[in-house]
Amino acid sequence: MPHTIKKKLYLLLEDQSNIEPRARWVRAFLVVLILLSVTTVIIETMEDISIAYRHIFRGFEYFFVAIFTVEYIARLWVCNHGCDKHSGILGYVKHALNPFMLVDLLAILPFYLPYFLPNDLIFLRAIRLMRLLRVLKLGRYSDAVQVFSSVVKLKKEQLAVAGFGLGILLIIASSLMYYFEREAQPAIFSSIPHAMWWAIITLTTVGYGDAYPITAMGRFLASFLALLGIAMFALPAGIMSAGFVEYGERKRNRKRKKCPNCGATIPPDDKT
Amino acid sequence: MPHTIKKKLYLLLEDQSNIEPRARWVRAFLVVLILLSVTTVIIETMEDISIAYRHIFRGFEYFFVAIFTVEYIARLWVCNHGCDKHSGILGYVKHALNPFMLVDLLAILPFYLPYFLPNDLIFLRAIRLMRLLRVLKLGRYSDAVQVFSSVVKLKKEQLAVAGFGLGILLIIASSLMYYFEREAQPAIFSSIPHAMWWAIITLTTVGYGDAYPITAMGRFLASFLALLGIAMFALPAGIMSAGFVEYGERKRNRKRKKCPNCGATIPPDDKT
Amino acid sequence: MPHTIKKKLYLLLEDQSNIEPRARWVRAFLVVLILLSVTTVIIETMEDISIAYRHIFRGFEYFFVAIFTVEYIARLWVCNHGCDKHSGILGYVKHALNPFMLVDLLAILPFYLPYFLPNDLIFLRAIRLMRLLRVLKLGRYSDAVQVFSSVVKLKKEQLAVAGFGLGILLIIASSLMYYFEREAQPAIFSSIPHAMWWAIITLTTVGYGDAYPITAMGRFLASFLALLGIAMFALPAGIMSAGFVEYGERKRNRKRKKCPNCGATIPPDDKT
Amino acid sequence: MPHTIKKKLYLLLEDQSNIEPRARWVRAFLVVLILLSVTTVIIETMEDISIAYRHIFRGFEYFFVAIFTVEYIARLWVCNHGCDKHSGILGYVKHALNPFMLVDLLAILPFYLPYFLPNDLIFLRAIRLMRLLRVLKLGRYSDAVQVFSSVVKLKKEQLAVAGFGLGILLIIASSLMYYFEREAQPAIFSSIPHAMWWAIITLTTVGYGDAYPITAMGRFLASFLALLGIAMFALPAGIMSAGFVEYGERKRNRKRKKCPNCGATIPPDDKT
Repeated sequence: MPHTIKKKLYLLLEDQSNIEPRARWVRAFLVVLILLSVTTVIIETMEDISIAYRHIFRGFEYFFVAIFTVEYIARLWVCNHGCDKHSGILGYVKHALNPFMLVDLLAILPFYLPYFLPNDLIFLRAIRLMRLLRVLKLGRYSDAVQVFSSVVKLKKEQLAVAGFGLGILLIIASSLMYYFEREAQPAIFSSIPHAMWWAIITLTTVGYGDAYPITAMGRFLASFLALLGIAMFALPAGIMSAGFVEYGERKRNRKRKKCPNCGATIPPDDKT
Repeated sequence: MPHTIKKKLYLLLEDQSNIEPRARWVRAFLVVLILLSVTTVIIETMEDISIAYRHIFRGFEYFFVAIFTVEYIARLWVCNHGCDKHSGILGYVKHALNPFMLVDLLAILPFYLPYFLPNDLIFLRAIRLMRLLRVLKLGRYSDAVQVFSSVVKLKKEQLAVAGFGLGILLIIASSLMYYFEREAQPAIFSSIPHAMWWAIITLTTVGYGDAYPITAMGRFLASFLALLGIAMFALPAGIMSAGFVEYGERKRNRKRKKCPNCGATIPPDDKT
Repeated sequence: MPHTIKKKLYLLLEDQSNIEPRARWVRAFLVVLILLSVTTVIIETMEDISIAYRHIFRGFEYFFVAIFTVEYIARLWVCNHGCDKHSGILGYVKHALNPFMLVDLLAILPFYLPYFLPNDLIFLRAIRLMRLLRVLKLGRYSDAVQVFSSVVKLKKEQLAVAGFGLGILLIIASSLMYYFEREAQPAIFSSIPHAMWWAIITLTTVGYGDAYPITAMGRFLASFLALLGIAMFALPAGIMSAGFVEYGERKRNRKRKKCPNCGATIPPDDKT
Repeated sequence: MPHTIKKKLYLLLEDQSNIEPRARWVRAFLVVLILLSVTTVIIETMEDISIAYRHIFRGFEYFFVAIFTVEYIARLWVCNHGCDKHSGILGYVKHALNPFMLVDLLAILPFYLPYFLPNDLIFLRAIRLMRLLRVLKLGRYSDAVQVFSSVVKLKKEQLAVAGFGLGILLIIASSLMYYFEREAQPAIFSSIPHAMWWAIITLTTVGYGDAYPITAMGRFLASFLALLGIAMFALPAGIMSAGFVEYGERKRNRKRKKCPNCGATIPPDDKT
């Protein structure tokens, strides 16, 4: 009965809440495979290693693509069962356009594309780096993306206000520094976009040291802007942290609160 | 009926809560125009581009100034209707001195001024950068300024205390470093104001690398001050973040809750 | 009646809660004088300026010392009235040993000392910098010191734990880097104290760029330590921020809370 | 009665809550000894000092090892009394494998090992650095480790999500920079692992200045990634800070409050 196999496969691959040992092993295997695959792509960019062990890297790549291709086909086949109830081709197409499936496709495409397309070297290099997108396959196994988007949504107004202030400050800081430093350092503060590079690297407190004011006025302004601006550039991080805390609290509080008067439970805080 | 046109124009331009499609389109158009205008000013400072496309930049500038001038006149004319009920010239003058109107004036003045004033090159350059102040026109469409001033007001005592501590620490840090490093690096730590440049760039954790202690005593002190002072320099950012969170909570709590069962009002979430 | 003058002077100088215009003017005058005095000391370290305007600086210094001396004597004389009720010399001595009075003494001592002590140049320079301690006179007019010590006390356990973790991490980070980098960069990582300079400047995220790992192993470790350690080095700032927020809340909440059962007010949170 | 001595020794050495003066003196003495011992190891790595005072350092080392050996034996002997009730050898072995005892062993082993093992120079150096692990002996006297692990456990989900986001961002940032900068700076952005060094040092805002983009596209991307990524890299610190605050609150709230009027227990401060 193919239906039973399909159902079993569906439960094995697609049901994240499945806690049977077999399903967990499959998930763990796939996660390890993704991490290994990304690691090999990263290491492969070190030329001396990639040349010395090119056969091993190629072997690994065949192995990863083989598994990921089987996984992709299995997920595509299995689709009909659980997710959408569209019958026939349309159901498969719709499923294939689901973001997770697209990521799965992107994970194997860089391997197959060169067989169909002209062998342009620059293009091939870009294609090979695209294999790093396999890291996005991990999205299926983590709720990080969902948590981040919830936190951003929770704090979107505050983030917008902070972003607005940051943008205005950036323009003012870079145009002032351009005005005061361009005479003294025409190569570094040659235009406002160049001064913006300074402003971003300073106000985020990275401070590479490739661009900094040397005139007295420029230093005075930079000091003033640093003291004023760093608080503003640290705001998004502070807001995100607070959002994370709030998100955790809301999750915990969802079941809660009684009216101290009549004892009836009160629906949770607005906008959850 | 001029009165009706005036009223319509007023609703279109000045009523931010107007949600008719036409009013939204006008707002969106003006916001895009401001952003485009500021972007062109920024790009124009890149000399090679500004020389190559000088005619295009000039054309854009005429276009922006034309629209902003029309906008300014319209806003000035429309004033009588809604905002203040002063009749005659006095009403217009009072309206023209409103901060938003002054910013609108500043946005177009850099274009008209050179026709009335002597053609001094340095003066002209400063005038051209002044066009960047058009970014402040965005203030009309965002409540960022209002939110920031509320947050600062909410936390003004804590910010004052942190600022005081920061000032004292800055003076102590820079005079100590001046004392210990001026022999070894007379060019960099030549005076306390020079040492203050080091202190600000270090304690804000920017750390360009143009000034750092090299003597054992100087390094020991810098390590100590870094550990002690960075917590203090991070305070304003922490206080502002907390202020943002509190501001958001207050806004949410303003509409107190009622128990859906008995109708009794429930005291707001603890700390309001 | 000297007693009446003394009392008036006491109210004028020592009663910070005195809001009559005269007392406010005296306070404002003294604060401005302190700021001016500190500013002149700072500017005086810029040699070209201090030589060019040496007479003006000397004049200012005489003026500041004159006022501060009068202030000191007045505060000493007035003491008997309000603060302590010790009679005779003992009362004055005890008052003179009060921290605020000691700071006031330190503010004028650098002027008088050279008349009594041998004219050693290095000693004189140190003495002249000591005038910067006048900034501490501001302490009388701000509750910053009191707020900081309250916040530190409020969070002393957490700060101790963070400080302990920080110390351990610092030792481990610097000994590991010393071990891995001393071969490659014997000048920069020549000993653990040298490696500690690297560790502090890195983990506080200052990053001057005068010391950084260049070996693969050193970079790997530095990356790992940066990711792990920066969270720990940011803890004191986070704890202090939270302490500030809590301190503000406690101050506000001191009057508060009713038992939802019987309506009796409940004494405020423990450890206030 | 050896039993009585054993018991007394047990109370003196192992009972951290013992507040008799003698026990406190022993603890203080051992803490000071650990700190001194670690300090001498650190100073000993400064070659000029270690050669000049080699006899003093050797003397100190003998002293420290003697005390720590006595301490180790005493703790091992005393074990039988309090901690575990295993009789005979097995009890000692089990006790000796307790982490605190292993750390105590590690503290003296570097001294005894060279007598039993071949005198390899590199090995000896590593052995000598191992003495720094004595700092871990402090763990017995501080609850820092326990607090940190509690805070991490409290926030493990949020930390995992932040860590996941951080990992993904790191891979994307470094591969993009590798792609855009390798032509212009083949030595610095020669591979993705090299670009990762840049990414970590930038996104943690350390910014040594040994690696930074110089192409327009690279700078644009770096600016964008800095603004986006720094908020994410600051998250762990923010989460840990919030965890610390929450940990403190929980500890305080554990003893719930009673209304002093009617005796009814009052629900703890909202979010527990």
